[in-house]
This record gives sequence, C-alpha cells and structure tokens, in this order.
Amino acid sequence: MGNGKETREPGEELMQKIVSLCKRRGFVFQSSEIYGGLKSAYDYGPLGVELKRNLMNEWWRDVVHSRENVMGLESSIIMHPEVWRASGHVAGFSDPLVDCKLSKERFRTDKAGPVEVQSDGRLVIRAPDKAAAKLWAEAVKTQHAPGARVETRDKDVVLHTKSVAPPAEGRPGKIVLAGFDGGPDVEIPYRGYVTPDFNCPFLSEERTFNLMFRSFLGSVDPLAEVVDVFVANKDKSKLELRALIEAALAKSTVYLRPETAQGMFVQFLNCLNAVSMKIPFGIAQMGKAFRNEVTVEHFTFRSCEFEQMEIEFFCEPGTDDQWLEYWKNERMRWWRQYANNPDKFVFRRHAKAELAHYAKDCYDIEYEYPWGFGELEGIANRTDYDLKKHAEASGQHLVYTDSARNDPATGKPPLRFTPYVIEPSGGATRGTLVYLIDAYSEETRRDAKGEPVVRTVLKLHPRLAPIKVGVFPLVKKDGMPEKAREIVEEFFRAGINSRYDEQHAIGRRYARHDEAGTPYCITVDGQTIQDDTVTIRDRDTTAQERIKVDEALSVVQARLGKI
Amino acid sequence: MGNGKETREPGEELMQKIVSLCKRRGFVFQSSEIYGGLKSAYDYGPLGVELKRNLMNEWWRDVVHSRENVMGLESSIIMHPEVWRASGHVAGFSDPLVDCKLSKERFRTDKAGPVEVQSDGRLVIRAPDKAAAKLWAEAVKTQHAPGARVETRDKDVVLHTKSVAPPAEGRPGKIVLAGFDGGPDVEIPYRGYVTPDFNCPFLSEERTFNLMFRSFLGSVDPLAEVVDVFVANKDKSKLELRALIEAALAKSTVYLRPETAQGMFVQFLNCLNAVSMKIPFGIAQMGKAFRNEVTVEHFTFRSCEFEQMEIEFFCEPGTDDQWLEYWKNERMRWWRQYANNPDKFVFRRHAKAELAHYAKDCYDIEYEYPWGFGELEGIANRTDYDLKKHAEASGQHLVYTDSARNDPATGKPPLRFTPYVIEPSGGATRGTLVYLIDAYSEETRRDAKGEPVVRTVLKLHPRLAPIKVGVFPLVKKDGMPEKAREIVEEFFRAGINSRYDEQHAIGRRYARHDEAGTPYCITVDGQTIQDDTVTIRDRDTTAQERIKVDEALSVVQARLGKI
Repeated sequence: MGNGKETREPGEELMQKIVSLCKRRGFVFQSSEIYGGLKSAYDYGPLGVELKRNLMNEWWRDVVHSRENVMGLESSIIMHPEVWRASGHVAGFSDPLVDCKLSKERFRTDKAGPVEVQSDGRLVIRAPDKAAAKLWAEAVKTQHAPGARVETRDKDVVLHTKSVAPPAEGRPGKIVLAGFDGGPDVEIPYRGYVTPDFNCPFLSEERTFNLMFRSFLGSVDPLAEVVDVFVANKDKSKLELRALIEAALAKSTVYLRPETAQGMFVQFLNCLNAVSMKIPFGIAQMGKAFRNEVTVEHFTFRSCEFEQMEIEFFCEPGTDDQWLEYWKNERMRWWRQYANNPDKFVFRRHAKAELAHYAKDCYDIEYEYPWGFGELEGIANRTDYDLKKHAEASGQHLVYTDSARNDPATGKPPLRFTPYVIEPSGGATRGTLVYLIDAYSEETRRDAKGEPVVRTVLKLHPRLAPIKVGVFPLVKKDGMPEKAREIVEEFFRAGINSRYDEQHAIGRRYARHDEAGTPYCITVDGQTIQDDTVTIRDRDTTAQERIKVDEALSVVQARLGKI
Repeated sequence: MGNGKETREPGEELMQKIVSLCKRRGFVFQSSEIYGGLKSAYDYGPLGVELKRNLMNEWWRDVVHSRENVMGLESSIIMHPEVWRASGHVAGFSDPLVDCKLSKERFRTDKAGPVEVQSDGRLVIRAPDKAAAKLWAEAVKTQHAPGARVETRDKDVVLHTKSVAPPAEGRPGKIVLAGFDGGPDVEIPYRGYVTPDFNCPFLSEERTFNLMFRSFLGSVDPLAEVVDVFVANKDKSKLELRALIEAALAKSTVYLRPETAQGMFVQFLNCLNAVSMKIPFGIAQMGKAFRNEVTVEHFTFRSCEFEQMEIEFFCEPGTDDQWLEYWKNERMRWWRQYANNPDKFVFRRHAKAELAHYAKDCYDIEYEYPWGFGELEGIANRTDYDLKKHAEASGQHLVYTDSARNDPATGKPPLRFTPYVIEPSGGATRGTLVYLIDAYSEETRRDAKGEPVVRTVLKLHPRLAPIKVGVFPLVKKDGMPEKAREIVEEFFRAGINSRYDEQHAIGRRYARHDEAGTPYCITVDGQTIQDDTVTIRDRDTTAQERIKVDEALSVVQARLGKI
C-alpha cells in the first residue's frame, strides 16, 4: 500500500471492503480528510469510538478491576526528557534510513533485501514507467556509474554485472559492472541491500532517524534561540552548528511518549507507597503513544499516533519465567474470547538474536491479518533493566522492600531487591482493527425472487459492539414511535448504548444495524400495542422471537453478560 | 504559588492538604517526580485514574448514550496543520508576553496591572531581598534610567515620579522621574502595566507567544534542514533568517491540538453521512489537549497537558439562543448532581467585550475553588464561524441539507444552510480536581478517652468513587479471608471496582478507605461464618448494618444506581 503499485495483494480486496465499511458506517475516518488527510492519521467515528472504548474497558476490567494485585495508572504523555535518556530512547530508538538516488524514495534499511541479479548477470532496475526509466538511465550514465553499459527496456533500466560481493568481515561490498561498448569495468559500492520495489543499488549514506516526536516546553521561542546561535557562529561547520542547536534546544526539548511503559517504571515507588501491594503485583496503563514512523501501512495497523494497553508486572527474580508463562496464557485467553476465529491468534517466540538487548525472553501474540501474520501484543521478560536504569539516572532506590524476610547479607529484615518485570504490551488501535477484520462477514442469500443477495454483517462480540440494541417502530404511526421510545429510554437509563431508529423500511434498518454490528434489534409492531410484546432479532442468525416488553431489558442484559 | 512568596493565600492550607492526600492515597502524583518533576505535569495514580475515568464515563453516558441526537467521536491529537490555520490558532492563539528587565520574570501582559504610585509620588519597586534591591538600583541608575533619583530602603528600590501618563489614543505612555541631586527630569516609557509582584516599569518589548506545541512529522530531520538554510544564507538578518526557517519547517510542522473542538468541525460531514441525524444534533468528544501555558497554577487547575469533554451542538440559525439556554442548564444540572456543595457552581455570563470574536454569547460555569472562583466549563454560541472558516479553507461544502424543505431562492427542496453551533466545553482534568475539593472533609470526633480525633473523609459521589466497595475479613483466620475473597470475586464479576483488604486493624482499614472515598465497606466477622451475614458500613455516616451475604451485591448495586 502506498507505493502506487496496482497489483492486488492477497487480502487487499477484503481490506478495501473493510475500509469502505468503516467510513460508510462511521467506524474510522481519515483524519483531516477535508484537507487531504494527514499521513496515516485516523479518527474514530461515532461507532468506532464506541468499539475502541468497549475494547479498552474490557481490558481494564480484566486486568485491573478483576485482580487483587494490579493497579491502574495514567501518566502524562509529555514527561521529563530525562525519562527517555535513561530508558535509552533518545540514543537508541531510531531507524536506519537511506535514500534511493534514482527514485528519491526513503526507506528503512532493515526492510530492504539484497540485490536481484538474473542468471545471465543482468541487474534490472524497475522504474515506475517508461519516462522514468529513461531519466534514471541517464542519471546512471552521467552520475552514478559513468562508463558502465546501461540500457532501457520498456520500464526497466538494465545493467550488466560481472560480480556481486556483499560486505563481509569489515570489508565493504561492491558490484562490478560491465563497461560501455567493451570499455573497462565500473565498480560501484554495494551495501548488501537495494531499494525495495525498484532493485536500485544507488543509495545515499545511511543515517539514523529518531522515532520520537520532539516538541518544546516553556515560554521561550526555541527557533528565535536557534537564530541567535547561528548569528553568533557563522563560521562553524555544519556538524558544529548542529551540535550548537542541540545544546540551545536541550533545555526546552520534550518528547511525546513513544510507549506508555516508562510512565509506570518512573511511578513505581509512588504507586507502591500509595497502594501497599505485596509482590508480585502489576501496574496497568492504557493511552496514546506516538512514533514518527518512517513506514506507515495497512490502514490503522501502523500509524504515528496509536493507543496501547500495557501492564508492567513486578515479580521476584527467579519467578519471572513462570509469570511470563502465566501472562502469555492470560493474554491469549483474553484476545481469543471475543473472536469468531480464535485460531487466527498465534504465539511467536522471539529468536535469541531478535530479542531487545534488555529482554530475556519474549512472545508475540500475532494475528493473521488479510496481508499475513503481524504483531498484536508482545509479552516480554524485561528483567530488572528498566528499574535499574531509572534508579541509576535518578539516584532513587527503585526497589521492593520485604519487611518480613531477612537480607542474607545482614541476617535481618528487610530484604530489598529490584523486581523483574513481565510486560504484556498490547495494541488497542490494532486490537480494534483485528476485531473489525474478525467480525467482517458476507453471506449470500436468496431474495423473494430467488436472486442472490449479499448480506454484510459485522459479527462483533456483543460486549464489543458499539450499539447493543436497535429499537424500531415498524411504522411511524399508531403509537409505535412512542412505545419504541419508551423502551429505548429504559435501555438508556440502564447504561446500555442503544439507538432509536425510524428511518427507512424495516429491512433497511436491519441491514444498517447488521453492518454496524448491533447484536439485537427490537421492533415495536401492531401486536405490541395489543399484547405488550415485541420482536427481538438476532444479528447473526437473523432469527426473531417475541418477548414481553417488560422482559426486554433483562433478556438483553443476560445476553450481554456472557463472555 | 510558584513565585516563592511565603504568605499563605486563603484556601492554600486546604489545597496543601488535598495535594498531600492525593499523593498519599494515589490520586495524583507529580509527573516524572524521580527526575524532579516537569512543569505542571501530573500523573493520575491508581485511585485518580479511576476517579477521572468514572467522571468521563458519566459524562459520556449523559451526553452520548442517553441522547438520541448526540454521537461520539475521537479525532487524532495530531491533525493536518491546515486545520489550525483555518481555525485561527496558528495566527491568533497566542499570549502577549513581556520580560521584566530587573527580575527577568516573564509574564502575560493581560495578567499585569498598572503601576502603583504613592500619594507623595514615590514609585516603590519591591525586590525579593536586600541584595537584589541593591543590584536592581544599580541597574536602574546605570542602564534603565540614568540620571534619575534612585534610592534603596531595605528590600525596596524607590524612584520619585513627577507624572504618570498611561498610553492613550495612539499616544505612548510615559513616566517622568525626578533627576538625581536636583538634575533634570528623566522620562521612561510606560506601557500601562508593570511586573506583577514587583511593580517594576522597566520591561522588554511585548511579543506574542503561540500556545500550541509544535512538532515535526515525517522522516526528514528538520534541524538538519535548518542548518542547511543557515549555511546558505549567512548574511541575512535575524528577521529574514527567522522567516527562512519557518519556510523550511513548514512542510513538516504539525501541532498538538490545543482543543478537541476542531476535530469535530472537520469531521462534521463524515459524521453526518455515517449517522444520518436530523438537525439539531451534536458531536461529542473527550480527550487530551495541550497548551504551552506561560502561567501554570493551582495544582492541576492549569497545566500544559489536560483533558477536555466537549460537545458541538449543531442547530438551525434562529434557534441558537434557545439551545444555548438548554445546554447551559443541562450542563449545570450535570455538574451539580455529583456535588456535596452544589451552590459552589455558578454561572458567569461573558461581558460583550470579553467574548471571543466569533462568539455571540457565552456562559462560564465557574466553581468556587479554595483560591476563588474560576472556570470549569464554558458554554458558547460559536455561530457558524468554524464551519464557514473550514469550508472556505478546504473548499468543501460544510452545510446541512434538509431535503424536506424548500430553498426560498429556488422554491424547491433541498434547503441547505450552515448550522449554528452551541459548544459546551468542559474540563475533565478540572472536573476531577473540583470533585476532589468538593469531597474533602474533616470531622472532629472524640475517641474512647474523649480526646479529639480528626477523621478525613473524601465524600465522593458513589458513581465517581474510585473503589465502590472494600471487602475485609475482620481477622486473617477462621475462614474469614476465604469468605471475604468469595464476596469480592462476586463484585469483580459484576464489574464493580472493589478491593480486598486484610492489612492492619479494621479501624485503620476503615480510615484508609474513608480517605480513598470508598462509599461502602463490607466486613466478614465471626458471625458471618455462623449466619451468612456481613456488616456494611457507610462512609459518610460511619453507620453499620448487618445484611445477608447473598444480598450484598444487590444492596450495593441499588445504592450505586442512584444519581
């Protein structure tokens, strides 16, 4: 997505249908759409905001409200910048980036693969069209590999390789190209990867790009300060100027948090002092996080602004393996219980080489998205890395004190130690997308004339469904609207999100609520006025049954209560 | 607060008690406290996060779930920068700032008052201490008013005025000072205000300071670009350089939203298309907003990161006055219904001169904070200003279409018009603070020896209280913990936030939960094991009654249901 190719990946058609339904029914809109949108930013519409809230409320209920030993927290999005220096995010939270000299495309080197060379030695650079191929070939001839044999074939720029050597053991890589018209060979550097999609080996230097959004706190105008710095240092080099700006901006620089986790580590002591829990115990937080992602992709799957649901579970060293096992199972149970297709959620254990440097072990819960398996939640054993880093940087003793046990060093209580941390870190934005995908279904039925009709249904779990009950008068007369409004008011009072709907024929209203994922529709009809019964229709089976009006609320409550 | 003065304002002692309780019980912590905190940033602890969530959930239930004609929305925090240009925030959302040349204090000119001059003409600049007074006097003599008569008296710097003329009718103001030792008079400029607290007339130029947090989106490093700009334009003036930087940064600049409102205006059409409501209808949103406030004050009252609860209610022009009246009463009803002291919430209508340029009318709901009355919510008639501005800037038709009514111009349907907007804009961060203040109470009782004992109770409305029920075994034996855990599990399953607590004597547990605002405490005692009854204690009266174990849940549910 996003590079303008017109080939359809598997699952792309399904995603297009989901994106379209999301806009049509008010789940997800492109942010600032009237201004042409903003790179990968999304807004949650009237139904989407309910779905995401329901999902996050379910998580909070499961991890905080239903457990004796987990407490909630909501830390601020802008924290002291020292937090991010101590955590390693200022220095290390960056992507290696490179620019393609032909397409000007910027890409992450870790997303790029090695050069493709045909069996006859041809290296084909795939331009997007014929005109680009001509321009690119010209640029190769004149700037990037003068003297090399360069041809164009339709949309391709073709070079002829004699050998390809990737970098190895500190030795730089190179590609040897045949010379033009039997002339001498031309060597070009080869870094072991090329531009994805284009197979182009002509690349800029690598540089790192920090993923944190930076801003400035305080009433000083940072750009005015920068100008002052420059005017006073006109003869300095670019590198020196860059260092001087950083120094001038350091005192006002703040970052938008790239994860909610660090807020829990830095409030470890305050939380423990306020709510004296015994180890093991957890702190849970949900909220926005921001990453200036180079690659945004797949609708809301990877975006710069997203929402997390994270737990930091503090346990005694030595019990960490067992708690990792516990949480990976708990979290998998939770995700699966709302799904129509629980088998699409799988574990993937990180290979040793893939583990973050602070992690002892890590499992991802992956979901089979229409474009393939991808991460939904990570459950990591972060050891005592974070607490120790923050203790070191802040000079505070971020330790757990057990006053009932002896310190082996003194033979007396208390025993103090730095807990290990198991971190189940889930995506609320991704979770919302996952359940939209899981719920989307099309059923072909026959209409009265025997023609096939497609019914689109969002089979969301009733606890996640944005609207729980649609209440309709069959027609807009004979006291039916008044009766339907009485019923919907009763649901309002009970705190159940319901919608009164009288527009269009009853069939269209059912169809609309099928697409909205409303599990139950209650219809007031002629019989209601006579015997105080209504029909209740099940979204998934479309079956209707008659129930007493004064039982409607308790019937729905009972069905919603089930997980 | 914050300027180092040691005098106690009225109510300051109460605020200190509340701030202390907030930290002790885990309502509100200073953000990044282990790193010395960050200017006015706060984290919500285990109890605070529940209180704020409850408040915001109550709002959502009242304004979205209980109304046929209001839908929810959650727009992104980072939106297209054009949104803020069209809304006027890039150009106009700024504070006029000035620096005091003596104290170096930066202040908002709209917060500053006129110079104080004694009846004998003396102008006393109040330095913080004697040493500063000497330095300041020296600076006045040598730099700011050379030749003037300047004396120091203890902590005061004394000047002698002959006349004071504030600026008027385009004419600049001036202060005429007596000369030193009978020398000629010295004129200094006077802008009509002086440094608050210090009464100092020596001020820098005014400049405006935009309150929006600025950041940069995309994989380009904006500071590297800025260096390039400078290197290529070494000989330009500061003003020109500043303009060049702005131009270079324009393509990557984004802002953190300073209000949630604009997100609703720009999604007006998408919302209306997805959920076809008839006018009048509203869009509601709650979420974070960010303002780089110059003055932060009064605990969480004014902070740079805060949470809003806003409604944009779209109505037909001509009905706007009536809907303003409707919403001001609805919102006042809502705030008061959770309060112990509803009389502390009052209306304040904005004077004509005080109205924002787009507003036709506005009422604030003010609360009587310990430091005086201050804003909690504003209910404004924003007319069609916002929709028209965004229509103009985006080229989209942000209008309501009524297909059942005739356009007077054509004599045929549809009738299209730009709705007027009534905006009830409340503070969730402030609301949380308001109810903490409203709930805080101290009662003096006599203990068994007749000594006075102060009981601190947080009389939070049960619907707002973080923990609804504390469940305690009287002692940690005889099966009581098991029984108490059975009961608390039942509350967990019912989705009622409850806490099992067995630490310390029962009296201390009651006291802890009084401070936490827990409305009900259930205790399992010896009799429970015999007859399956428990005591339930009311936080406010401290009265206990015995109820059946199997009625405990329904008793609590019934009490929580009441608004």
